[in-house]
Amino acid sequence: MRIGLLGVGTVGQAVARALIERRDVLSRAAGAGLVLQRAAVRDLSRPRPLSREQLTTDPVQVARADDVDLVIELMGGEEPARGLIAAALERGKPVVTANKRVLAWHGPQLEQLAASKGVELRYEAAVGGGIPLIAPLTDDLAANRVLELRAIINGTCNYVLTRMAQGETLETALGKAQEAGYAEADPRDDIDGVDAADKLCVLVRLAFNATCTPGQLHRQGIRGLDPRDLAYGRELGYVLKLLAIARRGPGLGVEARVHPAFLPADHPLARVDGAQNAVHVVGDLCGPVMFSGLGAGGDATASAVLADVVHVARRLALGDPVPPPRDSGPDAPLIPMSEVKTRCYFRLSVDDVPGVFAQVTKVLATHEIGLASVIQREPGKLGSAEVVLFTYAAPESALAAAEAELSKLPSTRAVLARIRVEASK
Amino acid sequence: MRIGLLGVGTVGQAVARALIERRDVLSRAAGAGLVLQRAAVRDLSRPRPLSREQLTTDPVQVARADDVDLVIELMGGEEPARGLIAAALERGKPVVTANKRVLAWHGPQLEQLAASKGVELRYEAAVGGGIPLIAPLTDDLAANRVLELRAIINGTCNYVLTRMAQGETLETALGKAQEAGYAEADPRDDIDGVDAADKLCVLVRLAFNATCTPGQLHRQGIRGLDPRDLAYGRELGYVLKLLAIARRGPGLGVEARVHPAFLPADHPLARVDGAQNAVHVVGDLCGPVMFSGLGAGGDATASAVLADVVHVARRLALGDPVPPPRDSGPDAPLIPMSEVKTRCYFRLSVDDVPGVFAQVTKVLATHEIGLASVIQREPGKLGSAEVVLFTYAAPESALAAAEAELSKLPSTRAVLARIRVEASK
Repeated sequence: MRIGLLGVGTVGQAVARALIERRDVLSRAAGAGLVLQRAAVRDLSRPRPLSREQLTTDPVQVARADDVDLVIELMGGEEPARGLIAAALERGKPVVTANKRVLAWHGPQLEQLAASKGVELRYEAAVGGGIPLIAPLTDDLAANRVLELRAIINGTCNYVLTRMAQGETLETALGKAQEAGYAEADPRDDIDGVDAADKLCVLVRLAFNATCTPGQLHRQGIRGLDPRDLAYGRELGYVLKLLAIARRGPGLGVEARVHPAFLPADHPLARVDGAQNAVHVVGDLCGPVMFSGLGAGGDATASAVLADVVHVARRLALGDPVPPPRDSGPDAPLIPMSEVKTRCYFRLSVDDVPGVFAQVTKVLATHEIGLASVIQREPGKLGSAEVVLFTYAAPESALAAAEAELSKLPSTRAVLARIRVEASK
Repeated sequence: MRIGLLGVGTVGQAVARALIERRDVLSRAAGAGLVLQRAAVRDLSRPRPLSREQLTTDPVQVARADDVDLVIELMGGEEPARGLIAAALERGKPVVTANKRVLAWHGPQLEQLAASKGVELRYEAAVGGGIPLIAPLTDDLAANRVLELRAIINGTCNYVLTRMAQGETLETALGKAQEAGYAEADPRDDIDGVDAADKLCVLVRLAFNATCTPGQLHRQGIRGLDPRDLAYGRELGYVLKLLAIARRGPGLGVEARVHPAFLPADHPLARVDGAQNAVHVVGDLCGPVMFSGLGAGGDATASAVLADVVHVARRLALGDPVPPPRDSGPDAPLIPMSEVKTRCYFRLSVDDVPGVFAQVTKVLATHEIGLASVIQREPGKLGSAEVVLFTYAAPESALAAAEAELSKLPSTRAVLARIRVEASK
């Protein structure tokens, strides 16, 4: 089984190293010799564990090479990765990828292409790094109707929020994350929730049989969060996380969204700290199950990539045909965000004058939003007071309308935060 | 695909119900119609979702029936379950079982029999109820050398210890567990660690390729534990759990043991409370990963049983042959308990006389056991004092010898507890 490797960054290096150093173990598990045959790199001059003629700067060569039986794509990003995956599949080569972006936007088409060519497209590494997720969600929960999935699938944001819970500002925490190697120099995709939304699309397809692209789902990152919000949440027993959430609605539909959310402190996800990832799933038979571990890092991601490689190689060695995709029934439609009901946290800066609280509660009542708890502090030096409200569940449309009205009240200086609250389960 | 069901207790009822109520979903996932054809029950007079001629009190009939294509064994216990599984396999019928006892003692032989007949023997439900474990451990971690596995796999003990951490005695907590349905009327197999040892044998084979039977591994249950021990542990930042532990030794060997152990309070397993189960695995590539959820209960276990049924049915529907077992290399030998090194907690009742502490520490020093921390309280009314010691890691042989000597010191009234401490990882 001759392997072509596209992309030799941190993960690619870990994969190459493992393919060379633990070739015996991997080949034994696969029932076939695994050989790293070719690799596409950016810079030919750097030292690599491959000979010069095995290396190229042209990934197209590797994706199409006649002496490559399986392609591992680890370049990341949409293009040229998508095109290279498609090119390899077109030539009947199975592909193993960690590319959540390509899968989120083009997964169904590429899977169709793979099926039409009778080869596998596998992507255990695309979500949750080294945490086994795909077989558990598709095979092991096959008898279940998945009711709900909530996940911490961006280690950067979770690291930042863990530090902010200790009082650090977003900027300080993000700087620390960058120093520690948990955030990239350009962290926008992480802190804006783009990365989490890509991964959620992959999970939603697997767990709910709902097709969605990142453009269709509600996405909000952690920008603008203040350590004060985390502190207020803690007072009432909540922890703030960036969650990727999918839930079966009352009908056929599925809601899918990425945003910061307060979780009850005793929820298993509330205890997932630092750069850890975790996926919490509720099935109607199995009840709640959780998978957690390292969501990123070269070796952890390589572990998932190589599991897929062994799987493909083993199937080929045994001569088993690739099974057709499972029939999971009709696609579930996505529920529009405006109809999604959540509890909510508001933090307002208001003038310290009589009647403010009556105005605020009147706005909520108008939109049929019930009030669960309130924190009001004595006013600060500038005559302004801070009011914190936790509401009961209401549709997003009502919450958004209430926010707009609250911000226009004469005594409101600003709506400083609106953060969703995930009720306990 | 005609299914024969052996045993219609809580899990069997949940399986039967699901096979009838969600037949469409399961059949679609399997790519073949799934039909509950026959069931062996104890009492024919109870109402069942099967017609009278489908029921029998003779499980042998079901295991051998010509109109049964797959046997689900949910009777539990060693015999006649083992014999029935073997009989079904002999006749070329795949078997799905939740029977940890049979797997722990006879797993390798039955797997060999299944392989020789070209059929599958599957047992996702045998460990950790509805938590996906087998595919994750065998397939998804295939590229890893598993370094360590620590698991909470007995819900009864975990429920009892969670209550004891709040100050209840073992007896009170066990009574509550029985009331709540988390402990059986005869809880011996649970509280003596027999159930956990059975499950550990299954896990050790999967994760370490080490063959062991429950008789070979060190096993100690939760009898004799005192809420005082849990309170002392908490003072120093530890939580007491009944753990099933397996770890790769420095050489080829693997240690495997079941016993109560103090875990650092920030270890993910320390936060697994009540009747929950969790398996924490450290792979040399993936790092630590944890799987948690409901370890028992009819529906959760049925979820795992049915995942296996769908898997087998799908393979048969596609006409795929059963792949040969993976070659995981040579068997790893079991390390004798006497050589296993652990940290340790001692609680002694001693006379409140000068020089006691010097005697105690001298015994430890003689056996080259380092002292990590000490708690000594002012003496009680009867002139006795309680001394609590946390040691550094030492071989079991040294710890046992030290315990014997400590109990013989003139000023020692009793060694009230010796509990292993699992260092953080």
